[in-house]
Amino acid sequence: MSEIVTAGILVIGDEILSGRTKDKNIGFIAEYLTNIGIDLREVRVVADDEADIIAALDALRHRYDYVFTTGGIGPTHDDITADSVAKAFGVGIDHHPEVVARFRDRWSEQDLNEARLRMARVPDGAELIQSATILAPGFKLGNVIVMAGIPSIMQAMMDIVAPKLKSGVRMLSDSVRANAREGDIGGPLRDIANAHPDTIIGSYPFMDEDKKPNTNLVVRSRDPEKLNAAMTAVKQMLAGLNVAR
Amino acid sequence: MSEIVTAGILVIGDEILSGRTKDKNIGFIAEYLTNIGIDLREVRVVADDEADIIAALDALRHRYDYVFTTGGIGPTHDDITADSVAKAFGVGIDHHPEVVARFRDRWSEQDLNEARLRMARVPDGAELIQSATILAPGFKLGNVIVMAGIPSIMQAMMDIVAPKLKSGVRMLSDSVRANAREGDIGGPLRDIANAHPDTIIGSYPFMDEDKKPNTNLVVRSRDPEKLNAAMTAVKQMLAGLNVAR
Repeated sequence: MSEIVTAGILVIGDEILSGRTKDKNIGFIAEYLTNIGIDLREVRVVADDEADIIAALDALRHRYDYVFTTGGIGPTHDDITADSVAKAFGVGIDHHPEVVARFRDRWSEQDLNEARLRMARVPDGAELIQSATILAPGFKLGNVIVMAGIPSIMQAMMDIVAPKLKSGVRMLSDSVRANAREGDIGGPLRDIANAHPDTIIGSYPFMDEDKKPNTNLVVRSRDPEKLNAAMTAVKQMLAGLNVAR
Repeated sequence: MSEIVTAGILVIGDEILSGRTKDKNIGFIAEYLTNIGIDLREVRVVADDEADIIAALDALRHRYDYVFTTGGIGPTHDDITADSVAKAFGVGIDHHPEVVARFRDRWSEQDLNEARLRMARVPDGAELIQSATILAPGFKLGNVIVMAGIPSIMQAMMDIVAPKLKSGVRMLSDSVRANAREGDIGGPLRDIANAHPDTIIGSYPFMDEDKKPNTNLVVRSRDPEKLNAAMTAVKQMLAGLNVAR
């Protein structure tokens, strides 16, 4: 039996919900996790609201092996992620001496104000996620990985934390362009899906370069032989199609 | 008292969670709702899994005035949104005669196969969301609005359904470029936020064209006078800043 490792993402921020900022982190983390053999099962986006953050965090962290959060770890009053995570876990939170020491190297006494010191607040027992190029650290507490909202910083944090995560057998995938309308292959595709229960077959319509409705078919499985068998069946089905587009 | 109208979004699809497809609908709907005076409070993304869809739908539809779903209403076996919504509401689902009639106008008897007919399955009591340019309709059942996953179609559906929704007093917003590092204004900004409790003040760091850390400040409120008062305080604070960047 291959172990399956699961994850959820929690995006924190009013600016995403107002539409002012368009999230770029969900897609990045989703692809990243697929590549390292972790199954992303659910994403939630909530406001900068302590009760909402804690409720979502508790739902996700008890259900999945890992939870990745983005956003809300900056220096301003609306950055409440670290405090909310501490509260969810029922642990204390304080200025982390190692982070404060790094901040003192970086900033003058005058610049190291209360706002900046907020970024050194880390829940008790958390492991820092930091590097020379990351100003304010992220952290990992239990199975929750807390990261910045700014995509470039979040991505650097993923690179640091990823090697420390357990990962399962990677979900493999293969895709084929059907050159057919989704509605013309839905029936036979369902039969193939039913005949290949250990695979996941997805159908994704798009308009092709000739402005014709076309379809990408994606077969996913952890077992390369089962993946191949299902993909072979899909290709045979497509070769036998005789419909005008 | 101004009424506040709230909403949640439920994005349905394995392809978003695998990272294969990057969601473009959340940002669009978020901005759309802000513009018509509906507060988006939460977003969830779940897989093409009936139990997951129903659980998320029930959580959101009981908590918010409206729920907008995207994805899973196509002709293939992995499109299970309509059936899941019917199950969540405990109502039946069948081929909608009006939709079937439109399909018969559009397709030959041969082309109108079982897969395409799946797209005519609509839960009992639902109101169709359709137009001449929308092939497979969306629908509204109770407070749940079910839309396509393809962005252009989803956007057409939003335009059709939006005029029928109740909306609250619109959340107003104003923004200013601080020309300051977030860490230098976090303290005074918190004081302003505390002094203006009926506003929401957000702080969004970015790298500006001179590669310097800069910050956008956004003030939001339903009351234009309170918005103005808070924004004036923010601008006075910024004018009084005397820090090197």
